Amino acid sequence: MALTGVTRPGHIQLRVLDLEESVEFYTNVLGLVETGRDTQGRVYFKTFEERDHHSFIIREAPEAGMDFIGFKVLNEATLDLLETGERVRFTLPTGHEMELFATKTILGNPLGDFNPKPYNPGLDHGISPVRFDHALLYGPNVNDALALLTDVLGFHLTEYVTLPETDIKGALWLACSNKAHDLAFVEHPEPGRFHHVAFLMESWERVLRAADIMSTYDVTVDIGPTRHGITRGGTIYAWDPSGNRFETFQGGLAPYPDWGPIRWDWSGLGEGGGLDVAKRVLHETFLTVLT
Amino acid sequence: MALTGVTRPGHIQLRVLDLEESVEFYTNVLGLVETGRDTQGRVYFKTFEERDHHSFIIREAPEAGMDFIGFKVLNEATLDLLETGERVRFTLPTGHEMELFATKTILGNPLGDFNPKPYNPGLDHGISPVRFDHALLYGPNVNDALALLTDVLGFHLTEYVTLPETDIKGALWLACSNKAHDLAFVEHPEPGRFHHVAFLMESWERVLRAADIMSTYDVTVDIGPTRHGITRGGTIYAWDPSGNRFETFQGGLAPYPDWGPIRWDWSGLGEGGGLDVAKRVLHETFLTVLT
Amino acid sequence: MALTGVTRPGHIQLRVLDLEESVEFYTNVLGLVETGRDTQGRVYFKTFEERDHHSFIIREAPEAGMDFIGFKVLNEATLDLLETGERVRFTLPTGHEMELFATKTILGNPLGDFNPKPYNPGLDHGISPVRFDHALLYGPNVNDALALLTDVLGFHLTEYVTLPETDIKGALWLACSNKAHDLAFVEHPEPGRFHHVAFLMESWERVLRAADIMSTYDVTVDIGPTRHGITRGGTIYAWDPSGNRFETFQGGLAPYPDWGPIRWDWSGLGEGGGLDVAKRVLHETFLTVLT
Amino acid sequence: MALTGVTRPGHIQLRVLDLEESVEFYTNVLGLVETGRDTQGRVYFKTFEERDHHSFIIREAPEAGMDFIGFKVLNEATLDLLETGERVRFTLPTGHEMELFATKTILGNPLGDFNPKPYNPGLDHGISPVRFDHALLYGPNVNDALALLTDVLGFHLTEYVTLPETDIKGALWLACSNKAHDLAFVEHPEPGRFHHVAFLMESWERVLRAADIMSTYDVTVDIGPTRHGITRGGTIYAWDPSGNRFETFQGGLAPYPDWGPIRWDWSGLGEGGGLDVAKRVLHETFLTVLT
Repeated sequence: MALTGVTRPGHIQLRVLDLEESVEFYTNVLGLVETGRDTQGRVYFKTFEERDHHSFIIREAPEAGMDFIGFKVLNEATLDLLETGERVRFTLPTGHEMELFATKTILGNPLGDFNPKPYNPGLDHGISPVRFDHALLYGPNVNDALALLTDVLGFHLTEYVTLPETDIKGALWLACSNKAHDLAFVEHPEPGRFHHVAFLMESWERVLRAADIMSTYDVTVDIGPTRHGITRGGTIYAWDPSGNRFETFQGGLAPYPDWGPIRWDWSGLGEGGGLDVAKRVLHETFLTVLT
Repeated sequence: MALTGVTRPGHIQLRVLDLEESVEFYTNVLGLVETGRDTQGRVYFKTFEERDHHSFIIREAPEAGMDFIGFKVLNEATLDLLETGERVRFTLPTGHEMELFATKTILGNPLGDFNPKPYNPGLDHGISPVRFDHALLYGPNVNDALALLTDVLGFHLTEYVTLPETDIKGALWLACSNKAHDLAFVEHPEPGRFHHVAFLMESWERVLRAADIMSTYDVTVDIGPTRHGITRGGTIYAWDPSGNRFETFQGGLAPYPDWGPIRWDWSGLGEGGGLDVAKRVLHETFLTVLT
Repeated sequence: MALTGVTRPGHIQLRVLDLEESVEFYTNVLGLVETGRDTQGRVYFKTFEERDHHSFIIREAPEAGMDFIGFKVLNEATLDLLETGERVRFTLPTGHEMELFATKTILGNPLGDFNPKPYNPGLDHGISPVRFDHALLYGPNVNDALALLTDVLGFHLTEYVTLPETDIKGALWLACSNKAHDLAFVEHPEPGRFHHVAFLMESWERVLRAADIMSTYDVTVDIGPTRHGITRGGTIYAWDPSGNRFETFQGGLAPYPDWGPIRWDWSGLGEGGGLDVAKRVLHETFLTVLT
Repeated sequence: MALTGVTRPGHIQLRVLDLEESVEFYTNVLGLVETGRDTQGRVYFKTFEERDHHSFIIREAPEAGMDFIGFKVLNEATLDLLETGERVRFTLPTGHEMELFATKTILGNPLGDFNPKPYNPGLDHGISPVRFDHALLYGPNVNDALALLTDVLGFHLTEYVTLPETDIKGALWLACSNKAHDLAFVEHPEPGRFHHVAFLMESWERVLRAADIMSTYDVTVDIGPTRHGITRGGTIYAWDPSGNRFETFQGGLAPYPDWGPIRWDWSGLGEGGGLDVAKRVLHETFLTVLT
C-alpha cells in the first residue's frame, strides 16, 4: 500500500541521429552522467543524483523519436499481480511501447547514503537535472490509454483538456505518484509519436540557469522560460541535436488520486494559459513538431 | 496500485492555550483559512490551496500538544483491507493517536478546477503554505512504530539516525508517497510528545518571506532558515503562541520505496549537518523542547 | 563626489487612453500606490517602497506615449553647476523631453525609517515592483544624446549595439549609478518615441509571480519571462491597457564607469541573445511596436 | 558627475595564518580566481566576474586581520581634487588603513565584452561570488570616520545604530554608490580591528548553495542564512581557516544620498532584527569575535 504497484518512470529510450554528438550534448550540456554502453551501441545515462544505473538511453538511428518508456514497479510480485507474467513489454493504444520492470542495477550517487554532504560539484555540471521526470506522447486512442493506465496500472488522471466544441478528452496528464504527472498524452492521428522527455529542475532559478546554458551552447528553445497553467510547473521546452524535444521542468502541483482532475477546455490550453501562462497562446509547435 | 492505501497526512489536531489568539495567529500570520468551528469549540483550517475541508484543527486546552494525526486512505475499501473495520483510530507504540479516514468534505479552493488562473491574492496572505506536509513526533518504541507503519500501513523508511554508539534506529523519517517524509519519529522516554507540524512552502525564497513575516509579527524562531541534511529540505522551525513548534518546509528529496533509507549516525545528525546544514550542531532545543 | 550630480530616474509621465482603467491597472495589477491627482487630471504613483511622492505619472490623452522623464540631481547646487539655471526641462537630440529636479516631497513608506520591520502586506499587492528603474526611448540622433548624457550629465555608457555592417552605435544603455542602466536608447527615424518603462523586481521568482499576475488579469505579454543578454537582467515586457510597454526587470550587472561598455553587434542583439537569452531572436515587436 | 569621485571598494588585504591552506580555501571553497603573487609572497584574487586584476589579497602573518582596504576613484583627476597628491594611503580615525587608487590592471573575465554568453562553468566553481562587496570594520572614533568619509570623500550614510540609552551613532553603514553599503563601522575600543569582508551573491538561492558548500567543506558558520534588517540583505557570516570572518551577502536596499539614513536603536539591532531578522537576537559573536 501507500506507494506501490507502478511507482515511477524509470527510463526512456530515444533515437538520435548522431550518437557521439548526442553523447556530448547529454553529458556536457544537459549534464547527465554516462553509465554504460551495450553491444547494440546504446548509451545509458542517469542524472547525477539518480541511483539507478540509468534513466535515459539513446541509440543512433536514421530518425529521431522514442523507442519505449519503462516504468518501475515496486517488486516482482507486482508483475505477477498485473498478470504480465513474462511479458513486461506491451504497446499502448496510442502506439507507444511501454515496459514495466521490477529491478535494475543500483549505482547510487557520489553523495552516498551515509551522512551525505549537501553539495558536490557534479550537481553543477551542465543543466544538471534532478531526475528523469515524465514524458509527453502523441498518438491515437488516448482515452483507451487512459482506461488502461488507470484501470489496470493504477495511474490517476490529474488534468485533462477537452477537444474543441466537445467533452472528449484530447490531452491527458496522469500520475502514479503525487507528482503533477508521470506520463501525458495528446490525441494525434499518427501512432507512437514523441513530444518530449522532461527532466526535473530544483527551482525556477535553475530553470533560468538552464536557459543560460542552452543559450551558451546554442540549444534551440521552443517555449519558455514560462509556467504551464497545466501542472503549474515552471518550464523550458528545447530540442536536442536530433530534434527530440526535452523539457527542464520545475515545481508544479502535487495532486492525490482523490482530488479528481483539473479540467481545461481547448481555449484554456491556449488563451487560458494552460500551455504558457505568460504568453497565453497555443504555440503551433506544440501540436505539430514531433519525433 | 501506484498511489493507494495510506496516501497522505490529512489533518492534525493541536491543543492551544488561548483559542482566539491562536486563530488570529494561524489565520493572519501563518495565513491558513478558517473553514469552520464545531460544538466542541474546535476550529478547522486549511491552506489556501488545499481542497479538503480541513487539514489543521486547534482546540483550547490547559496544555499545548497534539491530540491526534489523521491520514487519508484512498477509499473505504482500503479501510476494509486494513481490517480496521469501524475502528479507524488507534494508538501508535509511541503513544500517539493516529486515525485513518477515507472521505472528507471537499471545499476546493478559489482557483477552481476548470481553466484555473495561476494567481490569487489569497496565495500571498500571511506565510501562506501550500499544504500541511508532515509531523515529527517524540515517544518511546519508535522501532515498533516503524514496524507497524511499514508492515501494516505500507509506509517506507526514507532516512534514519542511529543512537550514539549503537546501530539502533533512534530517529525515523517515513513516507507513504514520494515525498521526503510524511511522518517522523524521535525516540523519547515520554509517550505522545509533539515536536512539530510542518507546512510546505513553494520555494526557498518563500521560506525567507516566512522569516520576514515571523519577524514582523514577533514569532519566535527556533532554528533556521537553513537546510536539513536529512530530507535536504529548506526549513525554519518556530513556535506558535502556545509553544507548539511548526515548520515552514521547502523542497527536499523525493525518494521511492526501492531506494532504501539514507543512514545517519548521531554525529551526522549534529556535526554532520543532518539537522542544520549551515550550523552543523545538534541544537539542544531539538531534543528537549516539546509539547 | 561618489554618487552626485544626476543620481537616478525620478519619474516618468505617460499618456493613457482611459484614465480610470489605467488607474485600476497601475494600482491593482502593477501594484503601485496612488499618491495624488492634480488640477490637470494627472494621477501620481509610487511603488510601495519608494519614498518620493511619485515616480510615475499618467494623464489621459488621445494617444499613448511618454511626455517626459525626470532625473533626480543631488541638490540645487548641481543644477547651478550644470548651468541649467531656471531651465531644468530640455529636449534630447532624440526628441524626448527630459527634466532635472533637485527636490521632491518625501512621503516615505509604511516600513518607516526607524527599526523598520522586514515585511508589510503592501509588498505583495499586485506585481509590486521595488522602484521605477529605467526607460528605453526610440528616436533619431542617439549618438548626440550619448554625447550630451555622458559629457554634460555624467552618465556612463554600459553597453551598446552597433548597426548592421557598421561600427555605428544604434542602441545605447547608460547609467548614472552602478545600475545596469538608468536610461537606454534605440536609433529610430521618428523622434520622441517610447519603448518601455521598467520597474525593478526583487528576484527572478518575483518575475514569475509577475507573469502569473499578468496572466490572471489578462495583461498581454510581449517578451519573456527570459533574460536579456544585454544588462543580464531577468525580464518580462508587457503592455498596459493603452499599449504602453512596461517591463518587470530583475537583477542584471552593476557596472562602473571605468569598466567601459560591453559591445554587441546586430546579430548579437538577436541571435546572440542580447535581447532574449532563451529564444535568441530579434523579436520583431522590439523594433516596431512603440508609443 | 553621477558616479564619480570614490566609486567602489576595490580591494582588501587580509592576513592569514597559513598561506597555502588559505589559497586552497579561497580558490576552491569560495571560488575566487588567483591572478598573481608578488615578491612579498602576497597572493592576489578576483571573482570570476570581476574585471580588475584583483579585489582580494592575502599574505601570511602570525595574526589574522586586515592590512588595508582600497577604494577605486574615477580617475587621476579625482586624486588631485582630493588633494591627496602623491599620498593615497591614510589612516582612518578608527585606526584602519585606507587607500585610494585610480588605475589597476584590467584582466577582464572569460565572458568577454563582445557578444558575451550568459554562462560559463567558472560561474559555478565553489561559492563563486559576483564581486567583493564591502567590509565591516571595528575601531574607535567611528563618528570621526563618518565625518571624513562623508565630508571629504563623498560617501553617504545609509543606516546607523545608536548606542544604548544615547543618540550617539555606534554603528554606521556608508555607501559611495547606490548599494546598501560599501563600508561599515562599529565603535570599538581597539583600533584597526576587522569584522568581515563581504562578497556579493546573485540571489538568496545562491546563499543557500553557499551554505551547502560551507557545510561540505567544513567551513564554520557564525550567523545565517538569514536576512539582516539593516541593509535588508540576505546573509551568511562564516570564518576562513585563519578566523577572518567573511560574508556571502545578497540583495539589500539600493539607497540614494537624498533618502537620509535609516535609524536603529540598540534593541533594534538585536531584538528588532537589525542583525538577524529571523532570530532577532544580538549574537554575542557579532560584538566580540574580531581579527
